[in-house]
Amino acid sequence: MTEAVTDFPIENLPYGVFRDGTGIATIGVAIGDRILDLRRSTGAGLFDELPTETRRACGEGTLNALMALTPGHWHELRARLTELVIAMAEVESYLVPMQDAVMLLPAVIGDYSDFYASIFHATNVGKLFRPDNPLLPNYKYVPIGYHGRASSIVASGVPVRRPAGQTQAATFGPTGALDYELEVGFFVGGGNALGTPIPIESAEEHIFGVCLVNDWSARDIQAWEYQPLGPFLGKSFATSLSPWVVPMEALAPYRVPIYARPAGDPAPLAHLDSAANRERGAIDMMLEVEISSAKMRDTCIPPFRLSRGNFKELYWSLAQMVAHHTSNGCNLRPGDLLASGTVSGPDAESRGCLLELTRRGADPITLPGGEVRRFLEDGDEVTLRGYCERDGLPRIGLGECTGRVG
Amino acid sequence: MTEAVTDFPIENLPYGVFRDGTGIATIGVAIGDRILDLRRSTGAGLFDELPTETRRACGEGTLNALMALTPGHWHELRARLTELVIAMAEVESYLVPMQDAVMLLPAVIGDYSDFYASIFHATNVGKLFRPDNPLLPNYKYVPIGYHGRASSIVASGVPVRRPAGQTQAATFGPTGALDYELEVGFFVGGGNALGTPIPIESAEEHIFGVCLVNDWSARDIQAWEYQPLGPFLGKSFATSLSPWVVPMEALAPYRVPIYARPAGDPAPLAHLDSAANRERGAIDMMLEVEISSAKMRDTCIPPFRLSRGNFKELYWSLAQMVAHHTSNGCNLRPGDLLASGTVSGPDAESRGCLLELTRRGADPITLPGGEVRRFLEDGDEVTLRGYCERDGLPRIGLGECTGRVG
Repeated sequence: MTEAVTDFPIENLPYGVFRDGTGIATIGVAIGDRILDLRRSTGAGLFDELPTETRRACGEGTLNALMALTPGHWHELRARLTELVIAMAEVESYLVPMQDAVMLLPAVIGDYSDFYASIFHATNVGKLFRPDNPLLPNYKYVPIGYHGRASSIVASGVPVRRPAGQTQAATFGPTGALDYELEVGFFVGGGNALGTPIPIESAEEHIFGVCLVNDWSARDIQAWEYQPLGPFLGKSFATSLSPWVVPMEALAPYRVPIYARPAGDPAPLAHLDSAANRERGAIDMMLEVEISSAKMRDTCIPPFRLSRGNFKELYWSLAQMVAHHTSNGCNLRPGDLLASGTVSGPDAESRGCLLELTRRGADPITLPGGEVRRFLEDGDEVTLRGYCERDGLPRIGLGECTGRVG
Repeated sequence: MTEAVTDFPIENLPYGVFRDGTGIATIGVAIGDRILDLRRSTGAGLFDELPTETRRACGEGTLNALMALTPGHWHELRARLTELVIAMAEVESYLVPMQDAVMLLPAVIGDYSDFYASIFHATNVGKLFRPDNPLLPNYKYVPIGYHGRASSIVASGVPVRRPAGQTQAATFGPTGALDYELEVGFFVGGGNALGTPIPIESAEEHIFGVCLVNDWSARDIQAWEYQPLGPFLGKSFATSLSPWVVPMEALAPYRVPIYARPAGDPAPLAHLDSAANRERGAIDMMLEVEISSAKMRDTCIPPFRLSRGNFKELYWSLAQMVAHHTSNGCNLRPGDLLASGTVSGPDAESRGCLLELTRRGADPITLPGGEVRRFLEDGDEVTLRGYCERDGLPRIGLGECTGRVG
């Protein structure tokens, strides 16, 4: 990654956890192609003006303690980081080259909830199964979601093993319909007590930051198992996360009006609607998926872009998902992960998974080099990217979420 | 609880976590109406013959470290406990009256997976929605399950707040169809690495022990939200757990032949079948549900039994659920909780939830005192019980799982 196109200018300052030279899990802040070691720089006194709880959280090996603080704490830390990084001299000795660091999962993830917030994704998938009635009647009223598996969430770069499973009556074997899903994840910061919903007005204050999520899916296992209790083994074999958590504050300059519901669509119910949420807006963030096959890598063919969409086109906002999730009193905890579901847009090129792109294999894709894909083959490497760009502002990126099927 | 009908004779010795007089979470072993303090008795040297890792695990404030050891470790500890408790003199000073202890959740539960293993439950519920075709085509091939919410699992006795939610298009408010579900939970002991399935032959070695689970459900919220991704807010507001984890070894005398699939049903696929699993058998355990309303308590009417069934009548065994869950490579971790789903039997009196008992409210139940119930009312207290009895053997019980709606 050259300095010119870095995802991590000083306006970004995302948090991650890396294993340092001594093998200790350490919180870091990405700056260009280097990582500021928060443990060592805190120990050296660079954050002595901040509250004890912030400094203590900066010395941990996961982000959970930092997430558990308030947006005020996050803002103070970010302001001090900005000040230090602009001056640069003081932090120079605490910078680690990114290429020397092994990135880990950024937090201990208690629960992982996955939504279905793109109406384009829901419609495209629905069309494959119910051509005359693709969208179920609850879709425009309820931010549909389900509980995902937390144990099998892995950091970007961890290989993904092709799962075996039941794909129809009396058949068990390796999936023949392995897919990726392009999603955006958001980490819960401060949680809520069981029984106390988070109102939509303050829902975003409970979000620490965002990352990329690849919700790997075995479509044949999923199709056979999912009635009536939803996806289970079709998805629980692996979920990949990009290692850097971009603070909500870094994304503030890229807010745009929320998705405009088409005329005739119902307005969100009162507990899912607020002027504050509407004014805050959606996040204008490009999202891309690339694939490279083993053959492409062997023959020096660069990765091929499968799709490009935008995060702003979600039917349900992050705040609506948080408010809905807690509307029954369900408690969220610092480090819990919520994800958007597959982000697809209205255009054919913005479909965020192969199920949609190939219409369940009916329209295969030809890769450069001549290979054909209905679903993923062994050796395929899928990379997700996300970034915000706007005239006069630096590019703010989420980094990469990558995984190879092997 | 009188000594005569205790769930906890010395043949049981279940593990739990209680808050002792100084407020510290401590592992205990239930003996009659007293609790052996494992931390203090280990500190006093009563377990010095056991390996360091066992003694260290006995000093923790959750069962996770003990669960992470092997069935060999569990057996050694149990053997030593039995020896001490028979002699009694040595442990006398480490016994705490149960009435003085506050019981906590026994483990940090990473992931919670809930199954649907009673074919009677699946058929009864299916009939309400699809009278001509109650059982979906996958049921007899796949142990259907879904990911539940771990954060909202609470200990027995914690009050359960009636959740609000969307119950149909454009309607949000308190659920009018609050239900309980009678389930048996089983804690994962030793886990498996991501990508490495647990074969059915050794699946039970990965189960530390069992407890009772009340999977509270809001049927109107669930009915509106569950398509296509399964239950979410209809269940994530609370799940109650009985505090004592009964070791698999204690249940060994109560094994009976596994559920006999009716003629014509498919045999389980190879990865869900083994001679060892068949020989080990099901667990003959009675399961009961009692209700008491506020009015009943005020007028000194004793709790009313709503149903009684047997755990042995599950279509899918514990081992089959573990083998299935990991068959795609999904990793289980020590302290993860799996649950059976509602345990119902073939008889009308063995239906394990109100949805089945009242046929979604069509056949209301009259309580002693004259009150009528379609679903739960505020003030209702639901208590689950489970116990094994056999001629010539002591009764081994799971204790109680109770919760009051308020």
